Amino acid sequence: MSDPVLDAIADGVRVYDLARPMEIGMPQSPNHPQFRIALQRRHGDSIRADGGSAASELIITGGHVGTHIDALSHVSQEGRLHGGRDAAEAQRGGRFSELGVETITPMVCRGWLLDVPAALEVRACPPGYEVMPHDLTNAAERQGVDPKPGDVILVRTGWAQRWDDREAYVGHDSGVPGPGEASAWWLAALRPRAVGADSIAFEHLAPGAGHALLPAHRVLLVEHGIHIIETLNLEELAYARVYEFLFVLAPLPLVGATGSPVRPLAVVSERSAEAGR
Amino acid sequence: MSDPVLDAIADGVRVYDLARPMEIGMPQSPNHPQFRIALQRRHGDSIRADGGSAASELIITGGHVGTHIDALSHVSQEGRLHGGRDAAEAQRGGRFSELGVETITPMVCRGWLLDVPAALEVRACPPGYEVMPHDLTNAAERQGVDPKPGDVILVRTGWAQRWDDREAYVGHDSGVPGPGEASAWWLAALRPRAVGADSIAFEHLAPGAGHALLPAHRVLLVEHGIHIIETLNLEELAYARVYEFLFVLAPLPLVGATGSPVRPLAVVSERSAEAGR
Amino acid sequence: MSDPVLDAIADGVRVYDLARPMEIGMPQSPNHPQFRIALQRRHGDSIRADGGSAASELIITGGHVGTHIDALSHVSQEGRLHGGRDAAEAQRGGRFSELGVETITPMVCRGWLLDVPAALEVRACPPGYEVMPHDLTNAAERQGVDPKPGDVILVRTGWAQRWDDREAYVGHDSGVPGPGEASAWWLAALRPRAVGADSIAFEHLAPGAGHALLPAHRVLLVEHGIHIIETLNLEELAYARVYEFLFVLAPLPLVGATGSPVRPLAVVSERSAEAGR
Amino acid sequence: MSDPVLDAIADGVRVYDLARPMEIGMPQSPNHPQFRIALQRRHGDSIRADGGSAASELIITGGHVGTHIDALSHVSQEGRLHGGRDAAEAQRGGRFSELGVETITPMVCRGWLLDVPAALEVRACPPGYEVMPHDLTNAAERQGVDPKPGDVILVRTGWAQRWDDREAYVGHDSGVPGPGEASAWWLAALRPRAVGADSIAFEHLAPGAGHALLPAHRVLLVEHGIHIIETLNLEELAYARVYEFLFVLAPLPLVGATGSPVRPLAVVSERSAEAGR
Repeated sequence: MSDPVLDAIADGVRVYDLARPMEIGMPQSPNHPQFRIALQRRHGDSIRADGGSAASELIITGGHVGTHIDALSHVSQEGRLHGGRDAAEAQRGGRFSELGVETITPMVCRGWLLDVPAALEVRACPPGYEVMPHDLTNAAERQGVDPKPGDVILVRTGWAQRWDDREAYVGHDSGVPGPGEASAWWLAALRPRAVGADSIAFEHLAPGAGHALLPAHRVLLVEHGIHIIETLNLEELAYARVYEFLFVLAPLPLVGATGSPVRPLAVVSERSAEAGR
Repeated sequence: MSDPVLDAIADGVRVYDLARPMEIGMPQSPNHPQFRIALQRRHGDSIRADGGSAASELIITGGHVGTHIDALSHVSQEGRLHGGRDAAEAQRGGRFSELGVETITPMVCRGWLLDVPAALEVRACPPGYEVMPHDLTNAAERQGVDPKPGDVILVRTGWAQRWDDREAYVGHDSGVPGPGEASAWWLAALRPRAVGADSIAFEHLAPGAGHALLPAHRVLLVEHGIHIIETLNLEELAYARVYEFLFVLAPLPLVGATGSPVRPLAVVSERSAEAGR
Repeated sequence: MSDPVLDAIADGVRVYDLARPMEIGMPQSPNHPQFRIALQRRHGDSIRADGGSAASELIITGGHVGTHIDALSHVSQEGRLHGGRDAAEAQRGGRFSELGVETITPMVCRGWLLDVPAALEVRACPPGYEVMPHDLTNAAERQGVDPKPGDVILVRTGWAQRWDDREAYVGHDSGVPGPGEASAWWLAALRPRAVGADSIAFEHLAPGAGHALLPAHRVLLVEHGIHIIETLNLEELAYARVYEFLFVLAPLPLVGATGSPVRPLAVVSERSAEAGR
Repeated sequence: MSDPVLDAIADGVRVYDLARPMEIGMPQSPNHPQFRIALQRRHGDSIRADGGSAASELIITGGHVGTHIDALSHVSQEGRLHGGRDAAEAQRGGRFSELGVETITPMVCRGWLLDVPAALEVRACPPGYEVMPHDLTNAAERQGVDPKPGDVILVRTGWAQRWDDREAYVGHDSGVPGPGEASAWWLAALRPRAVGADSIAFEHLAPGAGHALLPAHRVLLVEHGIHIIETLNLEELAYARVYEFLFVLAPLPLVGATGSPVRPLAVVSERSAEAGR
């Protein structure tokens, strides 16, 4: 029996890794637990009768640490989660009985890249730049991006180039570029399953303002039930000019959690990858 | 531009989730940190000026907790990792400079299911049962399983049916069925990229023996460089008689770690899924 | 200048350590995070220019893990903490704004031991034994125990002898001896600052009942504002027949927490210690 | 029977708390795990049949987080711990089989305060100030400090006044005042059981130098077996001019660890406390 999906990958695929490595000291929001890992056992700590030994670790993380996805339980407005659910009720018991990250069905669907700095003909959006709907429209037209409901849309700002400088990437003083409320409305109108970006928060952050207000989160998570993926690495994808791809994302099934670290992938056939160059 | 991969999913795919939910109290090896999650912030703990609020969590886990993959750094023999690398040298500094879980390239490849109890015509392998090469041969012939080098091979024992009873699933007193050293050799000969099973350890555990000896780990990880995936849920796949599929697995890029929780997927076209019924 | 306190210790003191060692696998309540510790850095991981190196650890614990003290924020009744404080209000924000463990003033006061099995002339109270007020009265009379308001009263059951057998000490199936509601009333009448015992819960636990009801906690913490110390080691003190002592306990100042691991001490002069033999 | 220790406290004692509150965001060394606490259960999450409910927490910490004590296993020189013990051997197995923090006998002994800024007639030592032996000599003479072997000596720099400004207290850019190698030798000559200070590291840190070299740690921990207590709050003690006191410190018995958070106390009789004013 031949399966079209297996046939399609038979000639070779190019897989783009959209996640950032997770390590102590990486950039992350101060609101969330600092990522920490320690080897509990090292080789040689105990040796089995046959000369074998094992190493393993202890890991501290959060649902919004590293490249991650926001569940719909993450944000509420006036005490209500998406669909008008009562936030206090949903979180009773210490884990969400509704809209937890384990309720996100794994994504195996079409994905699109909107490369905003490419459309603006700059290397990266400047720190204080609010990505506006006309930026998204321009990028979509220029790059042949035409999302259908249920697709995933990733917005590149180029901010990820600062990843290696923690303070710069967090960008508290400088501000961080990103889609604001207007762009959130624009994106929501396309009814994507999820949206993502290459900064810590899928928002426009003014210099010094921090996370005082998060309107794009409200519009997307609460008002439209659209998941948000943050801290993506979109540089390689942009460099290869891959704007349409198979998008795969499978959150850890952390029961009742508000988010999960993830390792999303963009997949195209080798043929397309070669043609893109 | 049309991409064969996107064309293949255009008519619809069936996605099988091969991971177990992660929650406090789930079955896990006592050698590893007990999974723990707590909401650090709940809705209403602090409310933004515009009426918004956010919830988030603190997570304790290990690299070998929940459904997970073993990196090649996990096991050593006589002080050597796969390829003869010096284990003490590789782990110096408190994280692996070689063979860490972040070095596992995301898997987007063909996967196969070997349903041993189906071949044995039982509901599940009995507790003390060592899965032998002839069991794997029988299952492969019966189910049309024909792996090529680089594919992923998943071995079902049916043990996963005990998931809801923690003590029974860990199976210290009863023993746990699984492939022993002979089957590890048989599998290694096929040169898969990774193998997996539906118990905590990809091993045959005799009653009361615990993890005193792990010969399949040695053969696979150390001697052949083949990753091991554990605590899989293969029940749905077996029920649907899906023996060949697109296998997708993307470990968290935990730098220098020996394993990672994962959420592997088996994907087939809707057409194949329907035909399988 | 001479200080009476320093003068008193000048001739030598005997210090009894009332805490249990904290290590992976020690007995603890399954309701609380499993204690875990891992060396993050070992000597040799990084070496300073001058040949120096340092080791340090990562620790997972809970406020009610190991020998510990309960803050008044730990237990509520009908939504009220001690003094009628609203529990929901006090915990808003994710830490207690009132009655957190950091509000417990360090204890440097008189302490008393009520050795119940000594009064009963048994080695230890049997598993299902509820320590009753007449047991406490008998022990007090026999041992010359005469607490004043503000003192600390420790109740020995002898259960601590099972410490090395985790399952036995937790005692879910066997039940655990301890003071029930009646003894809690008796103790509360003496207006101690804190009470303690040598089992995980300062309660009488019937076989198989677990922590379904905790009446002594309600009486002591909620109704009387008396702290509870659990998982004490009182064996050495009992063996030395030290019934009256200087009691010192300083909880970690974990802001807004409901409990803290502690290492309480009983101190007497060398002279008294010798006389006790 | 009357005990001199109990008699001494009978007229009332003044207890000085020398620890800093532990909370998210407090100053700490970036080399150690970030302190984190989250309520796992809040009141109302589950309610017992009788209307009772309990709250409890999950805690992430390190042995050198908050006010803490260094065990002798913390620092090595040329691969050797105090007494020439082999560091690699002692740490095999992932916890120290020798010199772990659980081997520190609880301290109930005489303590002394050396108030360096008082002797210098300044409010606090300036950032780059290395406390020299003559500073200690001057302070000792001025304040009547006369330590005997086995006593504990606490050195105040006044740096603790910056506690509320995390960056300032850590002092990476400014440098941090403290005893350097010469003062470590001076102190070691007095054979104290432990020494302590009011900054994160018991060292003189030059501006921008961080923890590149820690000579006082080497002299005290490795060469003389003298424990170090850090991040103390000595302000209140200095303000009250209490220079001699009963010092009580009981580290958590974390088996095989290199340090422990602590809550040390200084105790004097009410009479002395009044006289000091």
